[in-house]
Amino acid sequence: METINLNIQHALGANMTEAAIDALGHEAKDALAKVENGTGAGNDFLGWVNLPSTTSESLIDDICATAKHLRQECEVVVAVGIGGSYLGAKAVIEALSDSFAAYKNDPKATKVVFAGQNIGEDYLYELMNYLADKKFGIIVISKSGTTTEPAIAFRLLKEMLERKEGKEKASKLIVAITDAKRGALRQLATEEGYKTFVIEDNVGGRFSVLTPVGLLPIAVAGYDIKALLNGAIEMEKATKADDMASNQAMLYAATRNALYRAGKKIEILVNYNPKLHFFGEWWKQLYGESEGKDGKGIFPASVDFSTDLHSMGQWIQDGERTIFETVLSVEAPEHETIIPTDNDNLDGLNYIAGKRVDQVNKMAELGTRIAHTDGGVPNLRITIPALREQYLGQLIYFFEKACGISGYMLNVNPFNQPGVEDYKRNMFALLAKPGYEKETAAIQARVK
Amino acid sequence: METINLNIQHALGANMTEAAIDALGHEAKDALAKVENGTGAGNDFLGWVNLPSTTSESLIDDICATAKHLRQECEVVVAVGIGGSYLGAKAVIEALSDSFAAYKNDPKATKVVFAGQNIGEDYLYELMNYLADKKFGIIVISKSGTTTEPAIAFRLLKEMLERKEGKEKASKLIVAITDAKRGALRQLATEEGYKTFVIEDNVGGRFSVLTPVGLLPIAVAGYDIKALLNGAIEMEKATKADDMASNQAMLYAATRNALYRAGKKIEILVNYNPKLHFFGEWWKQLYGESEGKDGKGIFPASVDFSTDLHSMGQWIQDGERTIFETVLSVEAPEHETIIPTDNDNLDGLNYIAGKRVDQVNKMAELGTRIAHTDGGVPNLRITIPALREQYLGQLIYFFEKACGISGYMLNVNPFNQPGVEDYKRNMFALLAKPGYEKETAAIQARVK
Repeated sequence: METINLNIQHALGANMTEAAIDALGHEAKDALAKVENGTGAGNDFLGWVNLPSTTSESLIDDICATAKHLRQECEVVVAVGIGGSYLGAKAVIEALSDSFAAYKNDPKATKVVFAGQNIGEDYLYELMNYLADKKFGIIVISKSGTTTEPAIAFRLLKEMLERKEGKEKASKLIVAITDAKRGALRQLATEEGYKTFVIEDNVGGRFSVLTPVGLLPIAVAGYDIKALLNGAIEMEKATKADDMASNQAMLYAATRNALYRAGKKIEILVNYNPKLHFFGEWWKQLYGESEGKDGKGIFPASVDFSTDLHSMGQWIQDGERTIFETVLSVEAPEHETIIPTDNDNLDGLNYIAGKRVDQVNKMAELGTRIAHTDGGVPNLRITIPALREQYLGQLIYFFEKACGISGYMLNVNPFNQPGVEDYKRNMFALLAKPGYEKETAAIQARVK
Repeated sequence: METINLNIQHALGANMTEAAIDALGHEAKDALAKVENGTGAGNDFLGWVNLPSTTSESLIDDICATAKHLRQECEVVVAVGIGGSYLGAKAVIEALSDSFAAYKNDPKATKVVFAGQNIGEDYLYELMNYLADKKFGIIVISKSGTTTEPAIAFRLLKEMLERKEGKEKASKLIVAITDAKRGALRQLATEEGYKTFVIEDNVGGRFSVLTPVGLLPIAVAGYDIKALLNGAIEMEKATKADDMASNQAMLYAATRNALYRAGKKIEILVNYNPKLHFFGEWWKQLYGESEGKDGKGIFPASVDFSTDLHSMGQWIQDGERTIFETVLSVEAPEHETIIPTDNDNLDGLNYIAGKRVDQVNKMAELGTRIAHTDGGVPNLRITIPALREQYLGQLIYFFEKACGISGYMLNVNPFNQPGVEDYKRNMFALLAKPGYEKETAAIQARVK
């Protein structure tokens, strides 16, 4: 089986030894046990751990059939969600899509666009303007149905679709992914007769990409969710071993904790393939939201190389020595592009003529690794055989598992996000939401 | 005159007083003098300082005429460049464009796409596939003409265009922006008879958006470069004053240096409008490349709120207390979208029905500011009257001027980028580029 592979050799150096990482083996093992056995904080949110291998054939078939229906009926499907109800699907779809898919007019290829991931008045206006002459459907994703951003977007889009298609027909073009029993969206879906899928109580948003939350939009975009899940199952099995030599998730968790304790405060997730840009955004939520609490946690950032070597490269090379990098390196491109020969050779590129573009890309990566490690930036590297569903499934599960382990090693609850509520509470108070009367009075006194 | 405006009141608190910032007034004044008088390090790269007010009418007319020609002839124009030859144009175009412009098929609206900003084999393959049936032109931007990323992209696209249109016609669809006299691209442009514009020696890449480097792609995309420059001229004048009370660039530079010295190591540029995403990327290059050297410098990151409140929000609220934020707040959206009433009100949103979406966005911003300052995240805020060329011109110049001042206050040369060469040197050695024989032997011995 071809698989993603983690290499930490170039994270070692003057300030980090293999022994120092090995010394965390016991901690990593204890943390793994908490994840596997549910004996740590936040253990009511461990539904993702065995999710890939326990996802039923019938659920997959149901998702595929629903996706097929939406693809047949719609030119565009709007996936409405925020945070974990947005980033996983976005990351996988972008990784697998043609770089210019948005620009292309293939009437048979249903486009998936996103809404409810911001409160952009112009964004929503322009989205509805774009949809005006399109046959469109909606996937609305919200545990409660009352999260402000997706609720506003869904209210607008639902009204538009019902005006366009009539209430009856519109209800066949809307799919709700929500709580099994409770909440506003569940109630609405029941009343309107929407097709629904369930968000289980024991899977938090940032761990939900392999549930219908991520799988349905990915399937609507035309990608193979069985292969994605199969990749995740492979990694689910491979990350049960409780020694770092054979469990890459433990190794990643231990290495990054060792680096953090040695003063590396920032981790950049690096890609050398622009299609992985949103994978970086997904990863930032996963790690930032799991570990950034109690006044601690590595600050997660992401860069697209070589693009950002020409923007953030200077800081990374020569700024504060508090940074390390984890590189996602895709081994094989999907297409072949050869650098042509030019008789005049004014640009001096003939020395690489006849090579594939990716061969240059790989030397940029290797040259950067050497420059960065020489400059005091430890380098971890994850090779990905190709941008295919199976390997993305492996990568997703690898990072999820490592995140649980890493968070426990940091001694936080990796599965809550108390800080996310703070701005919401203030916003509701400022908007005078019913039930927030006391908070409204208090905050109005402050902002006077 | 309506103008962007900086407010630092909410950067003050337990650990930062107005007096502490005022105490840096002298340093800021000295730094400003270095920028204005050219008495500091890197003073051969100060061409941007008086550039807006000294840009000639004839240059602007020439750029506009060239843009008009490309718009008449082309459905798509590919802007080939990397770093400063990419991010400025991308930032302004995205800020001014319809959120779904890529998806729309308006044959009269010439699309500007980018290449040479990565070494993506699939990206280039898919770009050429997209262009296959399009009438396209090329703007190639490179001081030397030999920077690897744009040189590869240009070689491929030039060959494609010549095959498609013939050499003669192709030469009328290619515009080169390059050195006045030297270099591969200048020589090629002369031989082929391309229309050219000059990159002056005294303007570095990250300060070049208001030169033809940024202006031509922006004009091709259909935007008003005179208004952009006029905004910059307004800010050029407004940032000559040498006291912090009237010079916002000094105030921003002093505040961020005071925060850095007080242990705030990370600055996030926050937008509440997804159209400003790439403005954040441009800003990261400007500050990261100017200040990230000699083992110091604030780490610049950027987030799109409220989107990223659901990913990075937890870390920002509760992680290490080493972060501050600078918010870009656009006062007026371009379009009106009202939240509709729903009789059933299952989502509970009727309390905001009848409001504009942006009113909710503004309360999300205010609620977040209060949550973050309560949580120890100092908040700077820049209001922007609207996403229009004039205000973007003000904002660009404001950040450039403040960057020069801030870099001098940090006691670095804000105008060099020595660290960017390190990966390039290694890459050339690994690719056995002629002239790198010694480096090739050395690096091959290392990676064996």
